[in-house]
Amino acid sequence: MVMQMTYSVAVAGASGYAGGEVLRLLTAHPEVEIGALTAHSTAGTPLGAHHPHLRSLAARTLEPTTPDTLAGHDVVVLALPHGASGEIAAQLDPETLVLDLGADHRLVSAADWEEFYGSPHAGTWAYGLPELMLAGADGVARQREHLARARRIAVPGCNVTAVTLGLQPGISAGVVDPTDIVAVLANGYSGAGKSLAPHLTAAEALGSAQAYAVGGRHRHIPEIMQNLRAAGAGDVTLSFTPTLVPMARGILATATARLTDPTLSDDEVRQAWVDAYVAEPFVELLPSGPDGAQWPTTAMTTGANVALVQVAVDRRVGRVVTVTALDNLVKGTAGAAVQSMNIALGLPQELGLTTQGVAP
Amino acid sequence: MVMQMTYSVAVAGASGYAGGEVLRLLTAHPEVEIGALTAHSTAGTPLGAHHPHLRSLAARTLEPTTPDTLAGHDVVVLALPHGASGEIAAQLDPETLVLDLGADHRLVSAADWEEFYGSPHAGTWAYGLPELMLAGADGVARQREHLARARRIAVPGCNVTAVTLGLQPGISAGVVDPTDIVAVLANGYSGAGKSLAPHLTAAEALGSAQAYAVGGRHRHIPEIMQNLRAAGAGDVTLSFTPTLVPMARGILATATARLTDPTLSDDEVRQAWVDAYVAEPFVELLPSGPDGAQWPTTAMTTGANVALVQVAVDRRVGRVVTVTALDNLVKGTAGAAVQSMNIALGLPQELGLTTQGVAP
Amino acid sequence: MVMQMTYSVAVAGASGYAGGEVLRLLTAHPEVEIGALTAHSTAGTPLGAHHPHLRSLAARTLEPTTPDTLAGHDVVVLALPHGASGEIAAQLDPETLVLDLGADHRLVSAADWEEFYGSPHAGTWAYGLPELMLAGADGVARQREHLARARRIAVPGCNVTAVTLGLQPGISAGVVDPTDIVAVLANGYSGAGKSLAPHLTAAEALGSAQAYAVGGRHRHIPEIMQNLRAAGAGDVTLSFTPTLVPMARGILATATARLTDPTLSDDEVRQAWVDAYVAEPFVELLPSGPDGAQWPTTAMTTGANVALVQVAVDRRVGRVVTVTALDNLVKGTAGAAVQSMNIALGLPQELGLTTQGVAP
Amino acid sequence: MVMQMTYSVAVAGASGYAGGEVLRLLTAHPEVEIGALTAHSTAGTPLGAHHPHLRSLAARTLEPTTPDTLAGHDVVVLALPHGASGEIAAQLDPETLVLDLGADHRLVSAADWEEFYGSPHAGTWAYGLPELMLAGADGVARQREHLARARRIAVPGCNVTAVTLGLQPGISAGVVDPTDIVAVLANGYSGAGKSLAPHLTAAEALGSAQAYAVGGRHRHIPEIMQNLRAAGAGDVTLSFTPTLVPMARGILATATARLTDPTLSDDEVRQAWVDAYVAEPFVELLPSGPDGAQWPTTAMTTGANVALVQVAVDRRVGRVVTVTALDNLVKGTAGAAVQSMNIALGLPQELGLTTQGVAP
Repeated sequence: MVMQMTYSVAVAGASGYAGGEVLRLLTAHPEVEIGALTAHSTAGTPLGAHHPHLRSLAARTLEPTTPDTLAGHDVVVLALPHGASGEIAAQLDPETLVLDLGADHRLVSAADWEEFYGSPHAGTWAYGLPELMLAGADGVARQREHLARARRIAVPGCNVTAVTLGLQPGISAGVVDPTDIVAVLANGYSGAGKSLAPHLTAAEALGSAQAYAVGGRHRHIPEIMQNLRAAGAGDVTLSFTPTLVPMARGILATATARLTDPTLSDDEVRQAWVDAYVAEPFVELLPSGPDGAQWPTTAMTTGANVALVQVAVDRRVGRVVTVTALDNLVKGTAGAAVQSMNIALGLPQELGLTTQGVAP
Repeated sequence: MVMQMTYSVAVAGASGYAGGEVLRLLTAHPEVEIGALTAHSTAGTPLGAHHPHLRSLAARTLEPTTPDTLAGHDVVVLALPHGASGEIAAQLDPETLVLDLGADHRLVSAADWEEFYGSPHAGTWAYGLPELMLAGADGVARQREHLARARRIAVPGCNVTAVTLGLQPGISAGVVDPTDIVAVLANGYSGAGKSLAPHLTAAEALGSAQAYAVGGRHRHIPEIMQNLRAAGAGDVTLSFTPTLVPMARGILATATARLTDPTLSDDEVRQAWVDAYVAEPFVELLPSGPDGAQWPTTAMTTGANVALVQVAVDRRVGRVVTVTALDNLVKGTAGAAVQSMNIALGLPQELGLTTQGVAP
Repeated sequence: MVMQMTYSVAVAGASGYAGGEVLRLLTAHPEVEIGALTAHSTAGTPLGAHHPHLRSLAARTLEPTTPDTLAGHDVVVLALPHGASGEIAAQLDPETLVLDLGADHRLVSAADWEEFYGSPHAGTWAYGLPELMLAGADGVARQREHLARARRIAVPGCNVTAVTLGLQPGISAGVVDPTDIVAVLANGYSGAGKSLAPHLTAAEALGSAQAYAVGGRHRHIPEIMQNLRAAGAGDVTLSFTPTLVPMARGILATATARLTDPTLSDDEVRQAWVDAYVAEPFVELLPSGPDGAQWPTTAMTTGANVALVQVAVDRRVGRVVTVTALDNLVKGTAGAAVQSMNIALGLPQELGLTTQGVAP
Repeated sequence: MVMQMTYSVAVAGASGYAGGEVLRLLTAHPEVEIGALTAHSTAGTPLGAHHPHLRSLAARTLEPTTPDTLAGHDVVVLALPHGASGEIAAQLDPETLVLDLGADHRLVSAADWEEFYGSPHAGTWAYGLPELMLAGADGVARQREHLARARRIAVPGCNVTAVTLGLQPGISAGVVDPTDIVAVLANGYSGAGKSLAPHLTAAEALGSAQAYAVGGRHRHIPEIMQNLRAAGAGDVTLSFTPTLVPMARGILATATARLTDPTLSDDEVRQAWVDAYVAEPFVELLPSGPDGAQWPTTAMTTGANVALVQVAVDRRVGRVVTVTALDNLVKGTAGAAVQSMNIALGLPQELGLTTQGVAP
């Protein structure tokens, strides 16, 4: 006899891109039953008006986001605007697993939060990046361990995941210096959510590339720094510039840091990345063959819970250059949530997730 | 006690887009074990060099496409250039289920084949469009019935599926006249395969739309006509023009035909489409609400085995206008193959397939 | 001694796409001085905030759109929302040349206006499509003649120009039958203007195609029919469906009509198009060489005041298929305005205009 | 009496993108007559087969690229593959103005050439970046001075121009340190020319971003370093990574360098950029208003001979971040050639060039 356990999952903020992507993944999850779908201004409308690509849920009606509608589920996913999750989370059963896709509970430092978000800090939850390397006296641990049985999980920012996964192996192994990191990202437009703004219209975006939040103003900066410090960096200095390019999904993060020791061979440097990800199902260092290394593209990751990484050493400048591709809505958001949920529930972390991208 | 049957599937032509998409779907299929992957000029190279998005298969090596490498599988999928499947298929075990993604075995009429393809006809196989409506003395049947226990299946062309599914309800019900059909399609570039040609380069494609095969020259025309005749049309006259637009995947087919009877109400017309698809899991008529009908977009179908249809009556011109969206590589090719395979093997047709698109 | 005449031109609605494109063209016009630039809600802001690509005008400040700010110019271009130009035009000097880029003054039939726009008709102005063929007792004339010395000109809709130019040669020559025309268009997003709506965002548009105004609801329909009647059609029946595809600019119009006489040879049919455009500088029938006809793409026309046309006969269905490409903002809007302005002012119609597209 | 001088210009390599763009600009140049158009493998075909967007030249036939066909012109533009211009240039009249769009004659250091291009160095020509700042004992000069009356001009690489223009003001003024520069670029696909390669197809490019030449391997690196040294840098260390993003044209270059003195105010830093470009017609520092700086996008520059620059100081990391947008085919290639030609011929440098982009 097989006893099958099914978990009920509610999604608050179901009409947005992040909420929709969580639902797309959950419909493929064998141990999940989708519960209440809630929204704020669109409550009362059918989900299919917002996510017509989710055929099996199109006829479901959005309920208002309240503690009542969210109560009684095993899992609640909060896909709300930044600043909105603290209050609602406080009213949910402490035994309910709550995953926050917003930024509210990611940062450890209240001062960082207040500087970048300009509001009081809602507190810090277990951080939902299972592959995060944690430097410690007994060697490197993984953040995964802190997610088992967690009941409050803060899912990382999409840019954060891309830059962290690209650089952490070198920092953890001590082969790169975290004091002068530069990261520049090519970002798809779904990362901006469903907001209506002139620079997010199709006419402006098609055929164009544009930088934003230039000069150290992006809110993901303190979160990346926090991760790199966890991986073993002391002081972190990070120049971070995202650029919007004409694609709906995807992040291609180019991140570079100086070698700590210029006499390290290419193979010695590369070994840090090999070791970091050889056992990880959702982060992969692409092959480096005799014809040259294979470099990630965002299309390879579309729809998949995977981050693909490649690394090169630029001897002339004494820097390591890493390129990381991921789907901002999957490994960057909703896939990270499902993966963290699996871990917190004691399920295999791969359940319901795929590493196969939809390409071309 | 549950006895689980697993079917081994070989894919010939695995380095192309159609072969890759079959593999993407099969890795999610619970009853399939992926067997030999074969290719012609790229035999000996790793699959990951051609489909780096298929992470779980990236290290697999392509074998040469020969009867030997394909032998011993329960299922063989042929994703070969037009004209290449006849010879290889003849050397496969008659009890093996063979699905041909090429055009070779789709047409009933050898004369049509010779006119449009310019080579001898390889013969006609069971046609892999389960939802095809078949007019008959006892009412409407479905092509699905002819696929059960079939061992040779010709998977339809992607444009063919889009136009057929858009129009067949009206033809089957007798509400539209098949003698002056016009179809114009917006097509993504993956439909052209991996061929290297100037007009298929990114620089030429980005920011541009281009028609091709204008004037009745496209090879999918006789196949569409064959389907519409099967659905009940007598004479079929079809003007068909595809246009390449800057997207990687997707077909948006706008097809129009005259009403047979102008006195039919909108609801009466619509009912033909409602009836045709209400019980079909992979073809859906989108809702027609008080705020107006919801029209399909190709993004709704990306990666999904689904065709979405909407229909309107243009009273001024006495025509029905239908718009059908599908993913050319899924419901248009590889998903149709897997769905047909399921039926032929006696499995539930939905196995391993999803209707949820990857959007935005 | 050369006396150079310079005309002052004001642009009302300068912050929108149509207004901006008029300005882009006027800065290259040798006989024009750009006068007042006016706007409604954005009055008081610099033009560079709305059109940062117009470097030479970026520092100019937008004034309010009033009769006073527009007074005293030789030419006023109205790039206003539909319905807004009638009132302002009535307050401008009758001797001022006024070009309306909106729809208000295009239609001859007040009933058509009221049916499609739902407001009182503002009256009919000289129609700014110089190449429009006019059937008459003395043979074919051109609309150009009616623009000389005109002081009120209604610039055509962009889709209208594409479909009219594609089909009018065959109608004028009597080789095609106007009673069952079907036109399907691939449209770039700038045609929708700067409005903020969910389906016009980059995230929704990228990688997708979507139809709109399906079923005979698009407001350009009566205008196309009016043109084709002018060219010699009696009754016109037109099925018209636009589709948005992921490009910023451009229209690719596929339009088909039945041959009046199936015994006409391909050359006889083609001759109608040759004759229609051989002397036109801004409309060109692409070559039909021994290797096959060259088909227009929208990229060929980007930024240029040109419409490119190709035609084929589909013998199986007895239809002519035409494909017309143009830039919706240039030959479809602002270029047509400048060309009409040149004619009205007695200048060479080519002044300040180019037929060279910005491609790739 | 006005005596108008007209210069005859031949273009070798006219069927490629760079050659085509030179022709597009020259057709708008008031003092130029277009002479021989030559090509290698496509000689004998009409230009319209390769550049159908250049309507006025479409019927011209390509001649073979030989000293004979190029002889007798005032100006010869060489748009040839790297390595091909040295031999042909040696056979042209020394009094003929020759502009090389290839890399052959850009580098001063033969060793750099041999390291990055792997062939013997063809020699160094006057460098066609008029705005290049030249540090000297008597203050800053401009490269423009060296172009007056030059008869051999090497036009810069497109990426080179973008990074040089972004950073040179800070280097020339001594406010940024050139020893740890990082530049990451978003590049349109036309920069890769017309080569047919799998990663340059539309199906692969659409919806994806990909890095290339990662790790200090791009051939533009020594040329950028050469320019920054000319502007006053001693040692230059440059990490340079280009990424292909789904647009046909455009470069968005994000380049960052450390402040030499952290106590410099934002205004003091910015002043270096203000001073550098206030008098330049083709390079513009975008405004920095009370609502925040305006950041360049590539669409602002499409088709225009303009580079748009913005700069920010990131205090946390002690770095200046600059973003530069330009059209790789115009200010990055063909516009630079025409501008340099104008200067060499003693014409106003603006002749035939526009700063107005084709946007959206």
